[in-house]
Amino acid sequence: MADALDLGYATVDLARERRQGLPEVVYGPGKTAEQVVGIVRGLLAANTGPVLATRIEPATAATVLDAVPDGTYDERARLLCWRPAPVRAVRLVVVTAGTSDGPVAAEAAAVATAIGLDVTKVEDVGVAGLHRLLRVRPVLADADCVIVVAGMEGALASAVGGLVAAPVIAVPTSTGYGAALEGVTALLAMLSSCAAGLTVVNIDSGFAAAMAAHRLAMKIEPARKP
Amino acid sequence: MADALDLGYATVDLARERRQGLPEVVYGPGKTAEQVVGIVRGLLAANTGPVLATRIEPATAATVLDAVPDGTYDERARLLCWRPAPVRAVRLVVVTAGTSDGPVAAEAAAVATAIGLDVTKVEDVGVAGLHRLLRVRPVLADADCVIVVAGMEGALASAVGGLVAAPVIAVPTSTGYGAALEGVTALLAMLSSCAAGLTVVNIDSGFAAAMAAHRLAMKIEPARKP
Amino acid sequence: MADALDLGYATVDLARERRQGLPEVVYGPGKTAEQVVGIVRGLLAANTGPVLATRIEPATAATVLDAVPDGTYDERARLLCWRPAPVRAVRLVVVTAGTSDGPVAAEAAAVATAIGLDVTKVEDVGVAGLHRLLRVRPVLADADCVIVVAGMEGALASAVGGLVAAPVIAVPTSTGYGAALEGVTALLAMLSSCAAGLTVVNIDSGFAAAMAAHRLAMKIEPARKP
Amino acid sequence: MADALDLGYATVDLARERRQGLPEVVYGPGKTAEQVVGIVRGLLAANTGPVLATRIEPATAATVLDAVPDGTYDERARLLCWRPAPVRAVRLVVVTAGTSDGPVAAEAAAVATAIGLDVTKVEDVGVAGLHRLLRVRPVLADADCVIVVAGMEGALASAVGGLVAAPVIAVPTSTGYGAALEGVTALLAMLSSCAAGLTVVNIDSGFAAAMAAHRLAMKIEPARKP
Amino acid sequence: MADALDLGYATVDLARERRQGLPEVVYGPGKTAEQVVGIVRGLLAANTGPVLATRIEPATAATVLDAVPDGTYDERARLLCWRPAPVRAVRLVVVTAGTSDGPVAAEAAAVATAIGLDVTKVEDVGVAGLHRLLRVRPVLADADCVIVVAGMEGALASAVGGLVAAPVIAVPTSTGYGAALEGVTALLAMLSSCAAGLTVVNIDSGFAAAMAAHRLAMKIEPARKP
Amino acid sequence: MADALDLGYATVDLARERRQGLPEVVYGPGKTAEQVVGIVRGLLAANTGPVLATRIEPATAATVLDAVPDGTYDERARLLCWRPAPVRAVRLVVVTAGTSDGPVAAEAAAVATAIGLDVTKVEDVGVAGLHRLLRVRPVLADADCVIVVAGMEGALASAVGGLVAAPVIAVPTSTGYGAALEGVTALLAMLSSCAAGLTVVNIDSGFAAAMAAHRLAMKIEPARKP
Amino acid sequence: MADALDLGYATVDLARERRQGLPEVVYGPGKTAEQVVGIVRGLLAANTGPVLATRIEPATAATVLDAVPDGTYDERARLLCWRPAPVRAVRLVVVTAGTSDGPVAAEAAAVATAIGLDVTKVEDVGVAGLHRLLRVRPVLADADCVIVVAGMEGALASAVGGLVAAPVIAVPTSTGYGAALEGVTALLAMLSSCAAGLTVVNIDSGFAAAMAAHRLAMKIEPARKP
Amino acid sequence: MADALDLGYATVDLARERRQGLPEVVYGPGKTAEQVVGIVRGLLAANTGPVLATRIEPATAATVLDAVPDGTYDERARLLCWRPAPVRAVRLVVVTAGTSDGPVAAEAAAVATAIGLDVTKVEDVGVAGLHRLLRVRPVLADADCVIVVAGMEGALASAVGGLVAAPVIAVPTSTGYGAALEGVTALLAMLSSCAAGLTVVNIDSGFAAAMAAHRLAMKIEPARKP
Repeated sequence: MADALDLGYATVDLARERRQGLPEVVYGPGKTAEQVVGIVRGLLAANTGPVLATRIEPATAATVLDAVPDGTYDERARLLCWRPAPVRAVRLVVVTAGTSDGPVAAEAAAVATAIGLDVTKVEDVGVAGLHRLLRVRPVLADADCVIVVAGMEGALASAVGGLVAAPVIAVPTSTGYGAALEGVTALLAMLSSCAAGLTVVNIDSGFAAAMAAHRLAMKIEPARKP
Repeated sequence: MADALDLGYATVDLARERRQGLPEVVYGPGKTAEQVVGIVRGLLAANTGPVLATRIEPATAATVLDAVPDGTYDERARLLCWRPAPVRAVRLVVVTAGTSDGPVAAEAAAVATAIGLDVTKVEDVGVAGLHRLLRVRPVLADADCVIVVAGMEGALASAVGGLVAAPVIAVPTSTGYGAALEGVTALLAMLSSCAAGLTVVNIDSGFAAAMAAHRLAMKIEPARKP
Repeated sequence: MADALDLGYATVDLARERRQGLPEVVYGPGKTAEQVVGIVRGLLAANTGPVLATRIEPATAATVLDAVPDGTYDERARLLCWRPAPVRAVRLVVVTAGTSDGPVAAEAAAVATAIGLDVTKVEDVGVAGLHRLLRVRPVLADADCVIVVAGMEGALASAVGGLVAAPVIAVPTSTGYGAALEGVTALLAMLSSCAAGLTVVNIDSGFAAAMAAHRLAMKIEPARKP
Repeated sequence: MADALDLGYATVDLARERRQGLPEVVYGPGKTAEQVVGIVRGLLAANTGPVLATRIEPATAATVLDAVPDGTYDERARLLCWRPAPVRAVRLVVVTAGTSDGPVAAEAAAVATAIGLDVTKVEDVGVAGLHRLLRVRPVLADADCVIVVAGMEGALASAVGGLVAAPVIAVPTSTGYGAALEGVTALLAMLSSCAAGLTVVNIDSGFAAAMAAHRLAMKIEPARKP
Repeated sequence: MADALDLGYATVDLARERRQGLPEVVYGPGKTAEQVVGIVRGLLAANTGPVLATRIEPATAATVLDAVPDGTYDERARLLCWRPAPVRAVRLVVVTAGTSDGPVAAEAAAVATAIGLDVTKVEDVGVAGLHRLLRVRPVLADADCVIVVAGMEGALASAVGGLVAAPVIAVPTSTGYGAALEGVTALLAMLSSCAAGLTVVNIDSGFAAAMAAHRLAMKIEPARKP
Repeated sequence: MADALDLGYATVDLARERRQGLPEVVYGPGKTAEQVVGIVRGLLAANTGPVLATRIEPATAATVLDAVPDGTYDERARLLCWRPAPVRAVRLVVVTAGTSDGPVAAEAAAVATAIGLDVTKVEDVGVAGLHRLLRVRPVLADADCVIVVAGMEGALASAVGGLVAAPVIAVPTSTGYGAALEGVTALLAMLSSCAAGLTVVNIDSGFAAAMAAHRLAMKIEPARKP
Repeated sequence: MADALDLGYATVDLARERRQGLPEVVYGPGKTAEQVVGIVRGLLAANTGPVLATRIEPATAATVLDAVPDGTYDERARLLCWRPAPVRAVRLVVVTAGTSDGPVAAEAAAVATAIGLDVTKVEDVGVAGLHRLLRVRPVLADADCVIVVAGMEGALASAVGGLVAAPVIAVPTSTGYGAALEGVTALLAMLSSCAAGLTVVNIDSGFAAAMAAHRLAMKIEPARKP
Repeated sequence: MADALDLGYATVDLARERRQGLPEVVYGPGKTAEQVVGIVRGLLAANTGPVLATRIEPATAATVLDAVPDGTYDERARLLCWRPAPVRAVRLVVVTAGTSDGPVAAEAAAVATAIGLDVTKVEDVGVAGLHRLLRVRPVLADADCVIVVAGMEGALASAVGGLVAAPVIAVPTSTGYGAALEGVTALLAMLSSCAAGLTVVNIDSGFAAAMAAHRLAMKIEPARKP
């Protein structure tokens, strides 16, 4: 089978599912609805797993869904999805520091669910009220992977990183103003964390965090199978 | 009495004690030992309170103490002091995130002690092991003011800010490397804290934090007197 | 009583009033009117003190006030308030460098008033005409705490810091253009001030300054009571 | 058993091994040899796993090893180690873009080996000669986790991220000059990678990457056991 | 002949064609349609080669084309062109990392075509799927000059730089978000490339890249002539 | 006479004309039309010289002119002016690098004219065509002061600084994109100029440059009088 | 006469004295003593005015003075000078915010004196004690030009700018630490000053300020002559 | 023949000469003398063209030359070279803005000479004395490629870019202080140049500029051959 599809405006990577266990994911910004349709059709035809398009605005989503049926759109996560994967035995917990971090967490959770992770969400347990975080320790302890979504100073990542043994993926968000520098402060803080072994993805990228969890799940799940 | 002393290389502010309850403090960098001696003598002669010189290297300190007797030098804090104030009924707690933040905390504590605050130190209770912080809650609860000294991501400031009711002064330190950006990350993080009502001073400035505590003590102490 | 309220999109910190003398304050951006209503109702039910929501746009404010009566909205300060506190014997002066810093000062003053501080405002006394500042020295001398609100180069904070003995909280604003870097320059300048013992909060955060003053008032007021 | 050890200059987290499967690791900078000795002794006494101290200069290492026998020092990695763990069935590959990235890779490999990962190193396969990378695809394909160590523009992380299905942890290094901005450019580039699901740690932090691999191994290894 | 034309709002450089083989190109932003018309007319009258105006919005383009007939407008490239040059025997390949880099590549290709280069475009061959790039090696090998257009981490420039012997001009784009810093990350990465001899132009400046190719063509083409 | 006028929202500096030879100038942004009217009336009543308001949008200007007659509005310069000064014997030349720098130059020229300088403008003589600059050397040589307005890389300031003996005030503009960083690059470049004795004002601040020229004129003009 | 002297390593601008009233000044860093000697000799031979070399270290200075007699070296200012100009009737006041700003002020004063300005110095009158500045108002009022030298937050420039009518040249210094960012904060603050008509030169560049004063003096002095 | 040589610490790219007409060049920093020796020997054995090692300190150079005879060391350029190429018919001119830019120009010229370009150097023709640049126009006009080396504000690149038709490669240098930001200002300025078609390489990278010229020469030279 061909490993790439030439559409003129795009060279779709048809081999990614074979290499990485998941078809290429379409990045929405800068693409027209027609371009998204073309790429999604190519991916659906040449692969068997879930096909996703991220950061899609509602109007574009409607146009695309008209052209490529059987998909779903999650407006808060801005995610289009076709052929979601069945739930696998890998537990992911997505934690937010505040309600304003919700949309980024929504993207992480929606992508992770679409690719088959078993997702639990815990919202608004930032360190300004530590008892809120301590209350959910059992949920965190049970996770195979924790995604921490936090803006402003991003301190929740360090606190969670110190509490759990599982891999922790920190997602800085652009929540906040002034010295929060549109997420750069949270990003730098998470990278400088005193909690050892945190890893970090790009600002507001719930998608990247979910994909990192996917890589992890690719290793954990087969090991668990009898 | 004159409100300023002209030394050619310096115009010493003799009126500061009258205006702010504490003589001008000498900032060491960029001054020769002879200049420090001249300014300190002027301050001792024209004021009655404690006279301090900060960020003084050991060799300079020795020269200055030879010329102006009855002072003391704290090498870790890099502080010269003459005529320290008696202890006042204002409790200051200085907390650090890690052992490496020690020298900045030492400056804060030494300056605060010299000007009469009742200082307690708590070291190395960063958020990577939250139980260490929770263990010292009684000490924190008893404070009139808390100075939090932290480098790297500076998350301890947010955690303390959420636990105590007292004024919290956050001091970012240059502890860390790479994305810690020599203290800038901790500084930005503390300014963006989700814990309401924190205030922040310059990177590594234990001195500034102690002086902010002094301003506060000027208001609390008289109110307490019978 | 429960110390947290689970609303799904938020985990409201019901214990904050007990810990810090003031209910949690709702941060508006990124929340829907419905979410604000839910949180405010929870706080009103479980606490007894003033309930505030900051950075609320007029349309949201109207919706929220319809759903939760007996509140007031200050459009310039963008503040919603229920159950304001009675005035306490703690004098706060809010000073601005220029007329353009007014909205930030308005937030500081409105929040401080709502939580019971005795607030005086002095507008437009920047250092380009020092006599304007010197004229108001008696007002400043009488304060328990001074909040200085300034954009551009933020020099007013240093000048005020040198004049008064009281705690000074500096609020950089995004007033200015070009090299003012949307408030970053004023922020850095205030942190680097030659006036000892200034503390600084985030850019444009009149709210943070008022909350810092609240922490201070918690210490001064009881000491004053007979 | 106590969960913390008070040494005055440090509050050692004795519970970390219980919480996270590995004793607290000592961060060397800013600590005296005596302080390192004290903390290491405390950790050896209260835990059973490997005890490590990172970023230790040779002279300090010699002093510490004299006081605490049975340890080893890896000068290139600047790592002190006592009680290394036996090798576990988790394969880690550490890849560098160039020879100059070697010391950071050495830290990652030495820490990972000390805590029991099965480590393979591949050096100098940067993208300026892609065939070098393509030659080692079988080694990469066999990994449970890949650590990519690269300075300058850090492009190797994206290339590896696109080739392998396993978790990829990118470590930017300060190799390069000028626009490389002491590692900041590689850091930003890795965070902005077009290869989905990369995660990133702090500049030059081979240690952080190894610890992230440890978290992953904690999940993979038990799943593999019969 | 005069070497400059005074229009009051502009001093048109009429001598540029003589000095550099191409008339001055009009930079659209900040100019009114009337000003563009005036300058274009001056250039058409005093020169003989192609006259271009870049970064022209559609409405302005329509007004200008009404006033100065016989021009064409390429909306994706935002380019107005009169008197395009015949194709010269210099082969330029324009490569993009992703579909979102298309508009910048369109500007590069449109300008290059207008000034007579023989342009081939290759789209969406970023390093996350290296086989896509390796597939087009014959096209690249045939080029006299390659323009690489890439946003995010810009790694494609390094990969192409290592594959081809021809001059490579890298154009960073503002594609991406967060740590991509609106193109600054790609810019810094390209400048720090491990592939020797890349050169770089300003962010999103397809125009600058095409003009650099023009300078090169001025040297290659005459050398080729019999 | 009072040296300040309290308007509540403003403390107008009535003494500035006495101190600096020109009434306070009203900075428009962040002020309502009503506030501008109030301040302008106060200044007109208490001073005798020209009264200016800068950065005024057209709608505000119309409202203000309705309320305070006998003023004029220059839309390109965004300047309101009442009682312009008669022309003084001080020659100012305002030079721009490109047509897009025109609005900033317009502000500089309009303010300077309003306060009585004898202004000549030279537009679009950037260094990409040096002969354009060399053509106007006689105009430059005749100046008492030269204001150079340039964006992008700002090189014109260095070139002019090397040609003339008169004071040169450089105004960086936000013309350009990408690496031009909204004027920061031109600002830094002008400050780093190899031409000795240039001085620099804020980005896009034609106003500041004109005011600096005013200070100079205050010294030159009286010296010239018989 | 030739307008340039080719030395291989330098092309000395012999025409600068004719164009700008002062021979080219030698910038020391990056030049060997032999190179400085060669350039200085060329300038002394081809011009008649003062010849200066700035930022010269003591050892280099000694070597150069041995080779080129009749010069003097000011170690604090790091300035070599031959043929200083007689004092002209132009009064320059150099003011510093603190004693640590002294070396930069020394360079400004030494250069200005060497080229014939009538220089007065005022040291250590920063805004933390405003009465110190107000005491020297008569000195300032008498100046034809004021150079303000200040580090940290640089607020003195704004205060002086508001007090005097004369041209004010602000020199930011690298005095301070942390948020002072090695002078960048003072630089940005001075550029953003609320005092109209300040101009700014590069960080620590006493030289640039003196040269800007020279340009001014070139205009004032002839006008004063009978 | 093998296309790579495994040395453990390095994977030498033996195929680069075949792909790009020049053997891989050794980047010195971070490599021991022994490592340099190993790589150089491998390159000499497997390739036929010039072998270079850049940024080599004198002590390392001596050790390497002892081990690998028949090489030469240029201390100013910090370049080791074996088997330099004969001079080709491609004219390169290297121009500097000031004497302090000399070492970077030396690297560019030495590398270019070693790989067979016909190099001419022009030193110290910065824009502060434009006549110096105009004097050398004939030399510039004759070039196939111009490398402009400039620090501070880097304006020379724009001026040269406007004068010549040939490809211009701009090299920003770290010459200067304060706002020159160790070369970042010159870098940004060159990227923002108003002269169309400049290309830019990394700060202080004379090497990168020479390699870019090599790419160009690979296209020009064969075209010229009969």
